Amino acid sequence: GGRVLPLLLAYVCYLLLGATVFQLLERQAEAQSRDKFQIEKLRFLENYTCLDQWALEQFVQVIMEAWVKGVNPKGNSTNPSNWDFGSSFFFAGTVVTTIGYGNLAPSTEAGQIFCVFYALVGIPLNVVFLNHLGTGLRAHLATLERWEDQPRRSQLPSQILQLLGLALFLTLGTLVILIFPPMAFSHVEGWSFGEGFYFAFITLSTIGFGDYVVGTDPSKHYIAVYRSLAAIWILLGLSWLALILSLGPLLLHRCSQLWLFSR
Amino acid sequence: GGRVLPLLLAYVCYLLLGATVFQLLERQAEAQSRDKFQIEKLRFLENYTCLDQWALEQFVQVIMEAWVKGVNPKGNSTNPSNWDFGSSFFFAGTVVTTIGYGNLAPSTEAGQIFCVFYALVGIPLNVVFLNHLGTGLRAHLATLERWEDQPRRSQLPSQILQLLGLALFLTLGTLVILIFPPMAFSHVEGWSFGEGFYFAFITLSTIGFGDYVVGTDPSKHYIAVYRSLAAIWILLGLSWLALILSLGPLLLHRCSQLWLFSR
Ligand SMILES: [K+]
Ligand SMILES: [K+]
Repeated sequence: GGRVLPLLLAYVCYLLLGATVFQLLERQAEAQSRDKFQIEKLRFLENYTCLDQWALEQFVQVIMEAWVKGVNPKGNSTNPSNWDFGSSFFFAGTVVTTIGYGNLAPSTEAGQIFCVFYALVGIPLNVVFLNHLGTGLRAHLATLERWEDQPRRSQLPSQILQLLGLALFLTLGTLVILIFPPMAFSHVEGWSFGEGFYFAFITLSTIGFGDYVVGTDPSKHYIAVYRSLAAIWILLGLSWLALILSLGPLLLHRCSQLWLFSR
Repeated sequence: GGRVLPLLLAYVCYLLLGATVFQLLERQAEAQSRDKFQIEKLRFLENYTCLDQWALEQFVQVIMEAWVKGVNPKGNSTNPSNWDFGSSFFFAGTVVTTIGYGNLAPSTEAGQIFCVFYALVGIPLNVVFLNHLGTGLRAHLATLERWEDQPRRSQLPSQILQLLGLALFLTLGTLVILIFPPMAFSHVEGWSFGEGFYFAFITLSTIGFGDYVVGTDPSKHYIAVYRSLAAIWILLGLSWLALILSLGPLLLHRCSQLWLFSR
């Protein structure tokens, strides 16, 4: 119990640090965007003289209400529905993984009630499933399994080789999960690689801001399997992360052992 | 390894079920909102004859760009900044807890890079902190601690009393976390109680769609400590959830024991 207070202090300080830096980095950009928007509003009022300030604000209100209700205000009524089956499936996936992008969210009372019960069962099911996937991935790390049985201090060079092999495997896996898919997403969505990587990180950490979501630009025509591929990437990525998190302590232990022996 | 396939099947079926039900519940409401928006757009075009379809679409585009960049298009430039210190602090909290409402998200490249590293350290720190909080809460469940030491089969009535006491304690705690704060939030934000409860569930499950977020309505004047109280509620709620999840198996075990003895 005596360690709670320092931890609380560290936690609060970390949040304060974050608040300061985020504010420092974002406030100026926000002010610029805001000024730009005010200028465009004024220009609109100048160009269309039948409009007054009040009418414009009314229209902004209408657009924002549509947006909040999940209607994309851009384009016409022939836009594909946000709740077609593929999107609905993707939405169900963001609920059970707790990513919750929020670009789609239930707006009806029935939908919200169902969502609560769906998440109550779905989140534990997802945890069990991802753990099984992670265990499956781990079972293929035969090198690691063999290693556990070996008596200590034997065959030091071969142990180093195995550790290197494992490190290579983990690095390759991370590349496959965190580098190539973001590259593909950036290419399709027209993002920079940095934005693609940011999207990948925010997704696999299950933060899921929803500022970048693949397959949601209504002006783009995606190939049919694009969203499904993204969903498979998310599942593999999350179980890979679970694997790395479960292997982490073991790897650190092995490395420190090797370091001790080699002295 | 042989249990992965049935689990995969169950998982996919659960997602398909969710996709079907969500689509069923939401599609009609979406169509209604969409029709309503189209009508309001047409009415606007009729009332302000200097406007054409193209001009309107341009304006929608401008508003949506402002929204995506984090500018609230409603009201004038005297709106408080989204990145004032309180909001920035709240944002840092949604990153480390992985709730990630997304009503605020870094829009600059520097902000996004910092966010990745901030989350890399913050998420583990948050897990450690919440576990400590949960352990602290658990330490106060003195009844449970005493119970662990008792020899089996002794004092059956007193065990039942203790179990009842514990159940009462957990129920009261859940009420305090899941009923009263949603009531308060609903009152302040003008939500129904259902919406408040939905917000509480989506927050504490760390899904965090961001469709309902406390303290973000620019037309409302919140008291100074409102956002801080919400943050404390989130922390207590998350650690309470961690406690319940850690106690769950133990409680089930005790109940089944009591049931066996009482036969
Ligand atoms: K989330
Ligand atoms: K989220």
